[in-house]
Amino acid sequence: MMPMTAGHIVKAYDAELNQLRGFIVQMGSLVEDQFREAIQAVHARDNDIAVHAFASDVDIDSLEFELNELALKLLALRQPMASDLRLIIGTMRIARDLERMGDYAANLAKRARKLNIADPMTVTAALLRLANLVGPVIHGAVDAFASDDLNKAAAINALDDPIDEEYNRFIKEVVAYMQAHPTHIETCSQLLFMAKNLERIGDRATNIAETVQFILGENALAVMRKPKILPQLEQKK
Amino acid sequence: MMPMTAGHIVKAYDAELNQLRGFIVQMGSLVEDQFREAIQAVHARDNDIAVHAFASDVDIDSLEFELNELALKLLALRQPMASDLRLIIGTMRIARDLERMGDYAANLAKRARKLNIADPMTVTAALLRLANLVGPVIHGAVDAFASDDLNKAAAINALDDPIDEEYNRFIKEVVAYMQAHPTHIETCSQLLFMAKNLERIGDRATNIAETVQFILGENALAVMRKPKILPQLEQKK
Repeated sequence: MMPMTAGHIVKAYDAELNQLRGFIVQMGSLVEDQFREAIQAVHARDNDIAVHAFASDVDIDSLEFELNELALKLLALRQPMASDLRLIIGTMRIARDLERMGDYAANLAKRARKLNIADPMTVTAALLRLANLVGPVIHGAVDAFASDDLNKAAAINALDDPIDEEYNRFIKEVVAYMQAHPTHIETCSQLLFMAKNLERIGDRATNIAETVQFILGENALAVMRKPKILPQLEQKK
Repeated sequence: MMPMTAGHIVKAYDAELNQLRGFIVQMGSLVEDQFREAIQAVHARDNDIAVHAFASDVDIDSLEFELNELALKLLALRQPMASDLRLIIGTMRIARDLERMGDYAANLAKRARKLNIADPMTVTAALLRLANLVGPVIHGAVDAFASDDLNKAAAINALDDPIDEEYNRFIKEVVAYMQAHPTHIETCSQLLFMAKNLERIGDRATNIAETVQFILGENALAVMRKPKILPQLEQKK
């Protein structure tokens, strides 16, 4: 065996921290692919792509498992401090968000198949419009992490409001469509849940951007609590 | 100042670990109250209760913040090993699940108000049936944590399938109701999302039960990955 020196240990530790980062980048890339496929399944009414998108969920889940295993090992054996601790805790959080985003994308794919066996509906085009807003947010959040870029992370927040607005517009559009086409009510209920999935994916990407800020020491703990102003329920419609 | 002895330090550490546990119990109790109120708002068509349920979300959020602050402090300063490490990581995970359950309950309350300003619908009774399955799962998960009880934690999993079945039944019932009562389509779309909230609350409770198993050293890391058999998409309708 090679004699272990302090230098070796530090090198091994650095390699392990990089491995954590690698897991996130890999998971992020899988989620992006899966999302693109799920949307393509709707756009092209292609059930083969839907089945593929649905299945890739498993790989994302096992990466989360490997990441957690390594993170807990590092927490127990390396007694990390400060920025390393934030990276380890942060990657565990991001992995959880990505895993859920994968679940939402898989659910999109599953529901895409139900859309595709039914008659085409014009209102589906509006779902794709919403998806077009969500795709860049997924990419942006993963990219902010990969490039350790606070500005990119902060920019994600600004993209969430347009998603919420488009989402609310879309729900109204689907409800109006259901009222005008009662025979499509069942298929339209799929669209409602698909829109919800898209909106949730956007929220999770925002979570990731906040965790990137946490990892980089910006706002430190504060970002763990979403800045939440109690919405004025009375004024909401 | 009192001289610090090893005994003092251990005592302070134990007190801090107990404080973490206390945060979870407190959050759990708030989420249970909030959920009960949100359902009561639907049952009694009572908008005052809805507004109260919606507002209590803020307290849950700030408890999560305090818990994370303490957990990170402990990870950095106490260099916890084995079961303490699992407790700290586990309570952070549970806090996140509880915080989300609170968000879902708040969303239920918000949508309850929309139901209450519309004409009563018979199908709402079925939503309460679903809620009756979800309430005990929230309580069971929090109780399993508070009592360190592996059996109670394992029992939660068994309660999730009936929720999913009731949920699927309910969605079909609402879709049929919409088809029969097109003027209620908009209000019924609220019911669809409320059912989704209930189903998600059930899933989060299952997460908590899995984390309790992790904290207690059962399955160790394995529970961090949900046992997931790839569903046979082809056979699903």
